Amino acid sequence: MNNSTHWRNQIVTIDDRGRQALASAAALAVNSLQRPPLGPRSQLSPQQIHELIWSREICTEEGENLASVLEDFGESVWAHSLIPSDPFAVAHLHPPTLLPSVVTDLTVSASNQTMDSWDQSPAATEVELHLMSWLANQIGFSSIGSGVMTSGGTASNVLAMTLARSNSAAKSGHDVLKAGLPESAHRWRILCSDQAHFSIQRAAAQLGLGRDAVILVPTNESGAMDLAALDVTRKKVKSDGLEIIAIVATAGTTDIGAVDPLDDIGLRAREDEAWFHVDAAVAGAFLLSHQLRGQLKGIESADSVTIDFHKLWWQPFNSSALVLRDQSDFDLLRVTSDYLDRGDELDGMINLVGRSLDTSRRFDAAKVVATLRTLGRAALGEMVERVVEIAHYAASSIEADPVLYLVAPSSSVMCVFSARDASNDDLRRVQQQLLARGEMVLGRTIIKGQPALKFTFMNPLSSEDDVDKLIGSVKKELAL
Amino acid sequence: MNNSTHWRNQIVTIDDRGRQALASAAALAVNSLQRPPLGPRSQLSPQQIHELIWSREICTEEGENLASVLEDFGESVWAHSLIPSDPFAVAHLHPPTLLPSVVTDLTVSASNQTMDSWDQSPAATEVELHLMSWLANQIGFSSIGSGVMTSGGTASNVLAMTLARSNSAAKSGHDVLKAGLPESAHRWRILCSDQAHFSIQRAAAQLGLGRDAVILVPTNESGAMDLAALDVTRKKVKSDGLEIIAIVATAGTTDIGAVDPLDDIGLRAREDEAWFHVDAAVAGAFLLSHQLRGQLKGIESADSVTIDFHKLWWQPFNSSALVLRDQSDFDLLRVTSDYLDRGDELDGMINLVGRSLDTSRRFDAAKVVATLRTLGRAALGEMVERVVEIAHYAASSIEADPVLYLVAPSSSVMCVFSARDASNDDLRRVQQQLLARGEMVLGRTIIKGQPALKFTFMNPLSSEDDVDKLIGSVKKELAL
Repeated sequence: MNNSTHWRNQIVTIDDRGRQALASAAALAVNSLQRPPLGPRSQLSPQQIHELIWSREICTEEGENLASVLEDFGESVWAHSLIPSDPFAVAHLHPPTLLPSVVTDLTVSASNQTMDSWDQSPAATEVELHLMSWLANQIGFSSIGSGVMTSGGTASNVLAMTLARSNSAAKSGHDVLKAGLPESAHRWRILCSDQAHFSIQRAAAQLGLGRDAVILVPTNESGAMDLAALDVTRKKVKSDGLEIIAIVATAGTTDIGAVDPLDDIGLRAREDEAWFHVDAAVAGAFLLSHQLRGQLKGIESADSVTIDFHKLWWQPFNSSALVLRDQSDFDLLRVTSDYLDRGDELDGMINLVGRSLDTSRRFDAAKVVATLRTLGRAALGEMVERVVEIAHYAASSIEADPVLYLVAPSSSVMCVFSARDASNDDLRRVQQQLLARGEMVLGRTIIKGQPALKFTFMNPLSSEDDVDKLIGSVKKELAL
Repeated sequence: MNNSTHWRNQIVTIDDRGRQALASAAALAVNSLQRPPLGPRSQLSPQQIHELIWSREICTEEGENLASVLEDFGESVWAHSLIPSDPFAVAHLHPPTLLPSVVTDLTVSASNQTMDSWDQSPAATEVELHLMSWLANQIGFSSIGSGVMTSGGTASNVLAMTLARSNSAAKSGHDVLKAGLPESAHRWRILCSDQAHFSIQRAAAQLGLGRDAVILVPTNESGAMDLAALDVTRKKVKSDGLEIIAIVATAGTTDIGAVDPLDDIGLRAREDEAWFHVDAAVAGAFLLSHQLRGQLKGIESADSVTIDFHKLWWQPFNSSALVLRDQSDFDLLRVTSDYLDRGDELDGMINLVGRSLDTSRRFDAAKVVATLRTLGRAALGEMVERVVEIAHYAASSIEADPVLYLVAPSSSVMCVFSARDASNDDLRRVQQQLLARGEMVLGRTIIKGQPALKFTFMNPLSSEDDVDKLIGSVKKELAL
């Protein structure tokens, strides 16, 4: 085939011919989606998958027919992928997705807006701002609240800590983004619980403060930050001549879903004049449920909030947000650019690059908005309540079991558990064997020094019967 | 409608019913894609777009029918978006996309792998590793070269500078990620040209070094780093008792597409024991062309290379890579995690979180691989050559024009130009009026203090006739 004809037909255009070509190719792609016949992943070993994937040539001189590429992708890639909608995929905060989000994501790729400047995303910029304003309102922020979409909870937390660092430096008139860390920065500390996500430490590492600048406050038996311990820590930090630049509360810890006492922590952050960040990557979705949102009391006192749409809002990766109580705090970040964000744009042309650590950025707000509009609050709230209910059922079953026991209480969609007389090696063997055979993708972690297995329930289609089977499979494997 | 029935039908499953539902919804979504009747964007003002978008309710209690949501999205969002395939969309490095990438991205959303751990992306992990290995090979790295996908050129550059910082600290046995910046860090400097992308300065800001730690080396008249100036800078830095931790060369500057002399810069970086990073976000695609790849001579001496697939590889956002000459350098970054990357996984189960600053991460390699396999090298190379050819045609036309003149030579896909006797305000008016009326989305920048208009040619379907029309429209607007 003539090269020129070959590539001309592959460029996506928004006209009758283009839409028709896209619709045909999309149908082929959907048809290529395969899954293993049984269980959440295929039985192939890592080595077999490696050989299968690496046996394909990535780029021949002349290319191949799109239909055969897609078909082969189905056989070699999708058939050996994890199926997040399988009831036996219970390792991580890794959701199945929703139709409105997935098909809107298709149009996002086709129209390919980029969120850094208004002239690359006119309507998309307003969609993101509208969504961020809605989310700020759900959190309980006033009309000056707004946010920005990021690539994930880690990026949202890094952005929050970046703002906290600038905020702290600005108090002494120091522009940390321009001049670097001041001498006093070695005294800066970030406080979070010992169950906070590791991205808080990664953020400190990234920012030049180092992981050691993060002080882990002990948690109580339910996995939430212990307020008495927080006060002891605060007192100690101050008497050591150190400065608390941020206090991070977690709403939904990674391993057990615990929610820190947000309002009490917020009061203390205010007292210390520290940035108050709430990492609600996990439990932010509780905002959708009348039944659960009371657990987030105090979230409205935060300076910034992380919410991951690619967790309990069932969005495809990537889809996270950092929401600020006062959007003018984004000024702590903004640097003008000669080609992208000059500051002399026409009225109303907002360049979101000023809010972001990214430059080019996918229009990830679209799929979230399409989902919220289609499903509505009641259905999404019910989905969140349903996965919490499943986790409670699993926790009750484990509590009633003669062999298994809960390592920590279950407060959102996870259950961490172990078995009487089981060693760390036993738990590792159970998790690894079930994974190796493709029967179950099970979580494994360590809670305050104690090894544990973990179920994470992200699929509201899972049934109590599925939970019984999960527990049965784990017990069978333990006994082997 | 009963809530439960409503949401149950919206969850994407990989079975006959699920594929059928997805195919129908995808067809509706494709059909919703609209574009303004004339020009690269609609004629609506920012205020009108704001009112249009914000008049929709984001989340009602009961939701809406998916078909009407998609249709309304078409009318309110897509019809007022930028059309990157329009020949009059010439402001930024913002490409139209390709069928294989767009439809594969649909399956990526549906299957929703996440790249942080093998058990969330078994085959996908190998696809990314395979692609990174291929790309390392194209760069000219040996078999120990590999990389990681990131969300964009900025993220790739930040990751490269993070590695450079750790590398420098490690020389004196300092673990900067753990302990924070050492006292000596205020003497650390990063060298790049005055035409390098602003993300190098943003990286230094993020890392706690500050933008002031970046020294901008003057460029010659073709926009490439001046080697004599580099040597003067190096000498001065050393005599000031400062330490060069990284030298960044640019392959394809943002405004004029200039390529720095990579091999000569690489030799100097080696001499200074500094990290050598090549930001080839723009010109990395020259690897695809026999005719153009010679311009990248010396890229194989880099420690790290940024390549943006969402530029001249025509991928939807986000799609970038950082490729290392020696993948063991990722160890500078790796931190084990109790729940995600324990270090006791089964043989061959690689957790890519160890290479990344992200945790959850979309399977962006899929669309790139589907594109490379379908198009093949020859067609993609021809596409790259074609957009360079269009830019050369535009540059020649501007040079021959009695009113317009080039502000700098054109070396890849951009043309920066001005008009005799035109003030900065004139240029701003031209760009803003054409944008306001939706006729042309034109670039505007400042080259070494001189304001300029900018064409960026990203669409190989554009013709010489389109270029004539672009120039004609600009001249007409200038004369008003």
